[in-house]
Amino acid sequence: MRIAVFGGDGFIGWPTCVHLSSLGHDISIVDNLSRRRIDVELGVQSLTPMDSIQERLRIWKQVTGRTIRFELLDIADDYFRTRHWLDGYRPDAIIHLAQQRAAPYSMKSDWHKTYTVNNNVNATHNLLNALVDLKMDAHFVHMGTMGVYGYSDIGATIPEGYLDVGIQDDLGNLISKEILYPANPGSVYHMTKCLDQLMFAFYAKNDSLRITDLHQGVVWGTHTSQTRLHDQLVNRFDYDGDYGTVLNRFLIEAAIGHPLTVHGTGGQTRAFIHIQDSVRCIEIALNNPPERGERPKIFNQMTETFRIRDLAKLVAEMSGAEILHVPNPRKEAAENDLKVSNEQFLELGLKPTTLKVGMLEELVDVARKFAHRIDQSKIPAQSAWTPELQSQISSIVDLGKASRKA
Amino acid sequence: MRIAVFGGDGFIGWPTCVHLSSLGHDISIVDNLSRRRIDVELGVQSLTPMDSIQERLRIWKQVTGRTIRFELLDIADDYFRTRHWLDGYRPDAIIHLAQQRAAPYSMKSDWHKTYTVNNNVNATHNLLNALVDLKMDAHFVHMGTMGVYGYSDIGATIPEGYLDVGIQDDLGNLISKEILYPANPGSVYHMTKCLDQLMFAFYAKNDSLRITDLHQGVVWGTHTSQTRLHDQLVNRFDYDGDYGTVLNRFLIEAAIGHPLTVHGTGGQTRAFIHIQDSVRCIEIALNNPPERGERPKIFNQMTETFRIRDLAKLVAEMSGAEILHVPNPRKEAAENDLKVSNEQFLELGLKPTTLKVGMLEELVDVARKFAHRIDQSKIPAQSAWTPELQSQISSIVDLGKASRKA
Repeated sequence: MRIAVFGGDGFIGWPTCVHLSSLGHDISIVDNLSRRRIDVELGVQSLTPMDSIQERLRIWKQVTGRTIRFELLDIADDYFRTRHWLDGYRPDAIIHLAQQRAAPYSMKSDWHKTYTVNNNVNATHNLLNALVDLKMDAHFVHMGTMGVYGYSDIGATIPEGYLDVGIQDDLGNLISKEILYPANPGSVYHMTKCLDQLMFAFYAKNDSLRITDLHQGVVWGTHTSQTRLHDQLVNRFDYDGDYGTVLNRFLIEAAIGHPLTVHGTGGQTRAFIHIQDSVRCIEIALNNPPERGERPKIFNQMTETFRIRDLAKLVAEMSGAEILHVPNPRKEAAENDLKVSNEQFLELGLKPTTLKVGMLEELVDVARKFAHRIDQSKIPAQSAWTPELQSQISSIVDLGKASRKA
Repeated sequence: MRIAVFGGDGFIGWPTCVHLSSLGHDISIVDNLSRRRIDVELGVQSLTPMDSIQERLRIWKQVTGRTIRFELLDIADDYFRTRHWLDGYRPDAIIHLAQQRAAPYSMKSDWHKTYTVNNNVNATHNLLNALVDLKMDAHFVHMGTMGVYGYSDIGATIPEGYLDVGIQDDLGNLISKEILYPANPGSVYHMTKCLDQLMFAFYAKNDSLRITDLHQGVVWGTHTSQTRLHDQLVNRFDYDGDYGTVLNRFLIEAAIGHPLTVHGTGGQTRAFIHIQDSVRCIEIALNNPPERGERPKIFNQMTETFRIRDLAKLVAEMSGAEILHVPNPRKEAAENDLKVSNEQFLELGLKPTTLKVGMLEELVDVARKFAHRIDQSKIPAQSAWTPELQSQISSIVDLGKASRKA
């Protein structure tokens, strides 16, 4: 297949590209390298030493003999160049990862909210729009998030995208309907993924685009079979308060002997998936496209759920680290249950990597190995959801500074 | 009240501003005058001779002694200038009409789709974002559309924004929930209004913004009590295939002795409201804001429903015009029923103007009065929803040209 990977330089994008390239697909990356720009903005860097995309591709060619092309292009900003590029490449499938993907970054300031909405909405819409105008029947695979569901408060397992409901008609009869699961986003970032869903529904209905939306959980892990092939093919590893997800931050804290910082009670339950499973899911989704005229196909791309405090306990037991509860910068329920259906991927052959098995390798091969590169000041989450939450966090940060001075 | 009217130069905006000004409110208009630019693009003009916004405001001051200010500003394009302007004016309420509002225009080409999504999403989000950042508790009133609902296929009356559904939990119990009515937009334009709804839900939940969304039907009529006060205060009247709504086009066709062009079977049922009732509804909504922390308040802003072919019959009986069925450029059901709840506005004192009563005045005072300004070539709807529908329409248009030549 000819596959265009938009956002192919990112955390999911890079291992996806080398995974699909190793399977023999023709891969072209389109990326504006915004994630690297944001590293510069935040003064952070990947824990793993990461080369330029061009150097990565040179090494990939050297190690495997396979060519992956790269186009520097901002698809959110330039519709007509995006259309022109697509018209030249004519892919069989598109993988759309070209979105700002951190909830805390999206809540950092008004500028970051504007940037996230403008970037994410236009990136998605420009691609859909160009496919229609070019009469191109490429399968469109999008990276969404479990966060579109919010967290169920009715004791029902979260289905894969669509929900059966009963509605009363004017004669009092109960009519059964399957609807898109009602959106309940927890941040501006998550909100943009909910907006995506409505655009997908419209373009599938009006233009018969073939669209797959992957509702992914929190991704953990760094290496995949392909990124392990050479040091310079290593995937990025983020541990900062904006882009570092919860397990990464625990591992880093463990590696440097810092207590594991749990937000609030740690009663939040989240869905997880390993990066190797994530790229495998994308492969499975590519091989199982919806038909033309079908509604968007939605998969829940996750393999297990954990309560955050239980996750902290696991890391603490493995590493000997202590646990420290700090104020939660997010506006969310202190405790939630989460049951998720993920039968589609399991039926299509996914064999999950579990946290209990894979976590030690992450601690040893990544967090401890590169511990000398950790900037401890970047670990705390400092982007709060509201001004009130911001002041709670700031007072703690100030306290930390004061205690260091004392 | 200090009221900022974004999009205050448009078809709903202008009569809203003079209505609220006459009630003694302090009104500031912010508009990028995009609707006038689109007139230039399409080579069309309002049937009613319409002055510049500055001239309109000079006349309003002369006739009533009241001052309305005007700021030329593109709120979709410039977040920080929008924020700065809001910080200076500090309104008690915001009326947000600053969106591209024609479904056919939104489907005209890929450029028009991109423009509509980018403009409409960013306009809404920039306002919400600025209100939060400025800690401004202004009541936010948005003009939405009945089109967010799609058209019910289950024989149930469309409620005002929220739908009661039953959901089965994991124990088999039926749980009752009230959800945002599942979105089912029929065009890119309508889709943007569905995206708006999700943004409203998020900002009401996360930041306790007080938001009212008006799901408006097809607006007809030209004059309100205030626009009648002086010739130069007249409202715009669009009759072209993109911006002219169905009743306007029938009246224009009747005025020049052209058959009334009904799309398809004319079996589509739509909701209608007179412009005088529309501005009155906005006034009522302003006086009945939601509480802080409440979910967005949604009103159905419509007063009656008509099947399009019945509407054509009404105009035909009144004017003697014939009826001509032409292919429908829209991808939609040929026939639909539509029952809509609008109890909230009726309970709050709205006294509807009915089509049967008001239509003759429109024919005489507007369509026939300005018939000499009609460009007949602009009446047919020429923006189709898909390439297939485009070719059906084009062949008819070509046929028309051929028969005129012959």
